[in-house]
Amino acid sequence: MRADHNMAFLLKYENVAWYENGQVRILDRRVYPMRTEFVTCKDYKDVAACIKAMVTQSGGPYIAAAMGMVLAAKQAVEQGGDIKAYLDQAAYDLSHARPTTVLKMAPITEEIRDRLFKAIDGGASDQAIVDEAFEAALARVDSIYQRNLNFGKHLFDKVPDGGSIITHCYGESIMSGLLSVCRERGKQIRIYCDETRPYFQGARLTSSIASDMGFDTTVITDGMAACIMREKKIDLFTSGADMITMDGHVTNKIGTFQNAISCRYLGIPFYPAGNPTKKAANADDVVIEYRDESEVTDIFGTRIVLDGVKALYPAFDITPPELITGIVTDKGIYEPSQVYKYYE
Amino acid sequence: MRADHNMAFLLKYENVAWYENGQVRILDRRVYPMRTEFVTCKDYKDVAACIKAMVTQSGGPYIAAAMGMVLAAKQAVEQGGDIKAYLDQAAYDLSHARPTTVLKMAPITEEIRDRLFKAIDGGASDQAIVDEAFEAALARVDSIYQRNLNFGKHLFDKVPDGGSIITHCYGESIMSGLLSVCRERGKQIRIYCDETRPYFQGARLTSSIASDMGFDTTVITDGMAACIMREKKIDLFTSGADMITMDGHVTNKIGTFQNAISCRYLGIPFYPAGNPTKKAANADDVVIEYRDESEVTDIFGTRIVLDGVKALYPAFDITPPELITGIVTDKGIYEPSQVYKYYE
Repeated sequence: MRADHNMAFLLKYENVAWYENGQVRILDRRVYPMRTEFVTCKDYKDVAACIKAMVTQSGGPYIAAAMGMVLAAKQAVEQGGDIKAYLDQAAYDLSHARPTTVLKMAPITEEIRDRLFKAIDGGASDQAIVDEAFEAALARVDSIYQRNLNFGKHLFDKVPDGGSIITHCYGESIMSGLLSVCRERGKQIRIYCDETRPYFQGARLTSSIASDMGFDTTVITDGMAACIMREKKIDLFTSGADMITMDGHVTNKIGTFQNAISCRYLGIPFYPAGNPTKKAANADDVVIEYRDESEVTDIFGTRIVLDGVKALYPAFDITPPELITGIVTDKGIYEPSQVYKYYE
Repeated sequence: MRADHNMAFLLKYENVAWYENGQVRILDRRVYPMRTEFVTCKDYKDVAACIKAMVTQSGGPYIAAAMGMVLAAKQAVEQGGDIKAYLDQAAYDLSHARPTTVLKMAPITEEIRDRLFKAIDGGASDQAIVDEAFEAALARVDSIYQRNLNFGKHLFDKVPDGGSIITHCYGESIMSGLLSVCRERGKQIRIYCDETRPYFQGARLTSSIASDMGFDTTVITDGMAACIMREKKIDLFTSGADMITMDGHVTNKIGTFQNAISCRYLGIPFYPAGNPTKKAANADDVVIEYRDESEVTDIFGTRIVLDGVKALYPAFDITPPELITGIVTDKGIYEPSQVYKYYE
């Protein structure tokens, strides 16, 4: 079974990030579904800038970075200098666009870089180097989608037919996988999406793929999560994970920790999804990105607070293992404290 | 000590709701501080409509309803029919504008109605009836402000000098009282305001009065509450209360329950403020108002979700006594299960 990418607009490869003819085209997830707009990058540094500016987010940056490496390969052979040095810099720049995910991004850009180094060492032509980059990027995208589907297969058994789940932000990996498997196997579930301020990814993105795939989909504000968990008898909470440490701490979009606390109080299981990051031993290895306060104080360009009022925007929070029922990996579901066994 | 209403724009009587020359002027709290606009009502039914539409909220509706009774008195004497029947209907309409607060609103409009019945029975002139209504309304506003100050005096002792508190929505009663007392006595505290979607009352209103009064004020999104409680070592959570039952259940703006759960997990005390409502024995006596889903799906007039996606907007949630450290009343702080003793 393969994921049916055509079910949801947002999940089609070419609607995430795509290299073609010397440019990478990235869907602007900041404005979808109000507007369907793409940002076109003719320099890999613009791809990194798009990731930093959250033009694409959730699973998007991994695919954008892979496609960014194709663009970097094209630029490297055209600039005529030290191609390897150029690619090495690009692999660094693309993986370091946002601090919290560096450890997960670097293996992707470095894998493509290393494949290109081999091609260069083997005497590949300029065009062959770019072709190799595209093949490597596409293989990575394929493997990400296959991994997502595996997440979904493992979580599938935890969701009762006719049940209800709640999710936070746009957990592209687990939600695309789980919903694809549910559709394939005819399991009907109701999806409650936290809107996820300040970017509304839950309201705009998660609800869009769930609705596109034909699921009963309801958006709530972030403050409603615990109330709706109680009133609607939610069966489980699931989310993506921007970083999972080897000791079972889950870093994800700000608000995940709070929902996990509510789940604990209400007796609802929490299953975040993602593979652990080997280089992240514990929470001390996680850098939390703080974004500009204007992203909280300004709504669609309008400042809603008085001058002198401050704001905070930690983009992520860290949920400790004690609040997690199980971590969904592509190999199966692990108890948080046992997730390091993923690598055994 | 009296509250210094001049410290914050939002707390001045005339910036809440005010009767003058046959009309009630209500500050539109839906757009402040982006715009300072007033809605002018020439019919008491328009005052009720403003309450229903949340032109004013938090403590505003109580003052608006009192001033609405003055307008109703003016209309009653002008329409020339059964003045008492007219006033009786107005007292009903104004107190029933929103379902959740009927039991708290009715005593206010009925008190003014009954004072006017007495004046009518005593042969008061038309002008004397209207004057009596205004005096009754003003006395009620004075007593609300005095009560708020008493809330603040009682909570004051729980807040360490140099400490930090978090609040949710616009808890006008406790926040105006507490901040007035802190200013008067020179206690410096930091205020973290949940923005409180979908109306952003925390970002727009609470932060405005705190900042106007000179406090260090920071706005966060609703999903950040637990993370900020942990990272910033918040000393306590306080909120208003739209209804407190005699057995210690607190109904307040949606999101309060969730914050209370986070407080419990993190060991932070939660002190909601309000006097219990004698006619509300337990949570079964509380009607939760569900508002239109467009208030969640549309941001400043722009729909942000795909067609077919639903939304929910319960305006309030109910926090059980087990999650409450103490209920701040104007007579002192009660253990939730003992709050019925307020009437002993």
